Amino acid sequence: MNATHIEHLGIAVANLEESIRYYEDVLGLKCYSVEEVKDQKVKTAFFMVGQTKIELLESTSPDGPIGKFIEKKGQGIHHIAFAVEGLQESLDEIKAKGVQLIDEKPRAGAEGLNIAFLHPKSTHGVLTELCENPNK
Amino acid sequence: MNATHIEHLGIAVANLEESIRYYEDVLGLKCYSVEEVKDQKVKTAFFMVGQTKIELLESTSPDGPIGKFIEKKGQGIHHIAFAVEGLQESLDEIKAKGVQLIDEKPRAGAEGLNIAFLHPKSTHGVLTELCENPNK
Repeated sequence: MNATHIEHLGIAVANLEESIRYYEDVLGLKCYSVEEVKDQKVKTAFFMVGQTKIELLESTSPDGPIGKFIEKKGQGIHHIAFAVEGLQESLDEIKAKGVQLIDEKPRAGAEGLNIAFLHPKSTHGVLTELCENPNK
Repeated sequence: MNATHIEHLGIAVANLEESIRYYEDVLGLKCYSVEEVKDQKVKTAFFMVGQTKIELLESTSPDGPIGKFIEKKGQGIHHIAFAVEGLQESLDEIKAKGVQLIDEKPRAGAEGLNIAFLHPKSTHGVLTELCENPNK
């Protein structure tokens, strides 16, 4: 598998508006997109810093994945997403190495990317996503 | 403040050797440095992916910061470090905006960088470090 860079970091926040203000006013980043992803029960906000996006995630429901994460661990970094070349081949390769996958086939993610998650049981505590830009 | 990229991500792990094996064999990254930082009570391992380093952190003592983090939250991403230009000016600027700082002055960090931490109370749950390369 060939990871070229960190495509994004997902960060769970309690209040999207307040956190957008912090990332813009304090860290000097610019929010370029806010969208709701209904099936994940989140509102998201995106920032770019170098090669990497920061994706803030506010839960729209206590029983969504981000709501549960915040209840258990508090606000904080939720997942890391690596950009890879050859997503299906990467999944096949790491499955053959004994890694448990959440997604055995790529699926459509935010911003037109194909994505797949690895199971946290296999990733030493870090929820890990692989992404491929199909237009590249 | 001008953050140019994510300089590194610190990840707390229970067993450095096992995690190095995962990042190398599964994710295909190459560990280029292992060092012990005695005053932080950690052993560290560094990988590069695009512009960003991944710094794995294993505690050498249960009462060190990483040992306490793992006891409370489990293994996972511990902190994010932004590369900035003008570290002291950045600290002065964000302090004036009401952000609580752990380090009001830059101090020496790993790999020859000058670093400073912001207080997690002010950063919406994400332990945040700012880094400057003094040789740049």
